[in-house]
Amino acid sequence: MRRLPIQPLDAAAFAPFGAVIELEGAQHYPINAGTTERFHALALTDTAGEGGQTGISLFRGQGFALPYRLRLMERHPRSSQAFIPLSSTPDARYLVVVAPPGELRLERLEAFLARGFQGVQYARGVWHHPLIALDCSSDFIVVDRIADDANCDEVALTDEILATLPGSPD
Amino acid sequence: MRRLPIQPLDAAAFAPFGAVIELEGAQHYPINAGTTERFHALALTDTAGEGGQTGISLFRGQGFALPYRLRLMERHPRSSQAFIPLSSTPDARYLVVVAPPGELRLERLEAFLARGFQGVQYARGVWHHPLIALDCSSDFIVVDRIADDANCDEVALTDEILATLPGSPD
Repeated sequence: MRRLPIQPLDAAAFAPFGAVIELEGAQHYPINAGTTERFHALALTDTAGEGGQTGISLFRGQGFALPYRLRLMERHPRSSQAFIPLSSTPDARYLVVVAPPGELRLERLEAFLARGFQGVQYARGVWHHPLIALDCSSDFIVVDRIADDANCDEVALTDEILATLPGSPD
Repeated sequence: MRRLPIQPLDAAAFAPFGAVIELEGAQHYPINAGTTERFHALALTDTAGEGGQTGISLFRGQGFALPYRLRLMERHPRSSQAFIPLSSTPDARYLVVVAPPGELRLERLEAFLARGFQGVQYARGVWHHPLIALDCSSDFIVVDRIADDANCDEVALTDEILATLPGSPD
């Protein structure tokens, strides 16, 4: 059994895997005669290539508890995939587990705890665990590629790997 | 002065102008070994043509009161634009005002009241009023085209047109 420590989700630490969708650090400016503030291009998608369309979907994820035993890693070789939480209370959180593109190397797994409004966009080909909502069932806006061709590789994890908050007694 | 009656936002009534982004009536199915329900392709974007990229932004809109005096109509001739409310309590609501593509015809204006999770995607070229959040400042995820070329036509409204809930004393 291996413990994978969970780190706070941070744009710089996550940069090798994609974008953190958040207001902190975003370019923003007033539009609509000053009645709206635009937080501009928090992420640019990479979803429409190779005949694909960009779709807006909603994922409703079961709530899990920590520590979380990782089950499977997947990647989308033709596109990015963005998750934006609809429950963005300060207490809201979910777990993000990634590994670099290329052959999956379990020693390169990294786990991040997203909080509040933080969303993520996995870059094309980045390995990521399927959605791990925490604590309660949670809804996410998903912006990804819609097409009929194959765009998901999966690797089931047989090793027991537990994503664990540092200092947790588990 | 003219009163424009506000109707409930409904996918069929809104179809000439674009898509209503909502769970009602959506295709959905379990993924991720049954731990996630995917509500699939609530909208397909039309944002990446003519050298554009698809971006995910956030608009924070000032809250207005009803009746609302319309100020301006705009259209994006090169792309769709989607708005998804982040405050989706049953009481949350905002105002959507549209007119068909082509030359703006004020007699063809229609006003809709979006409630709860309902989002909208304006189809390419559809005239729409800039964001009209109601009651309180509200955040919306916006999926639109990111490019440096011209993609917004505006027409200021000089006539006094008040979007009004039917039965309102105003």
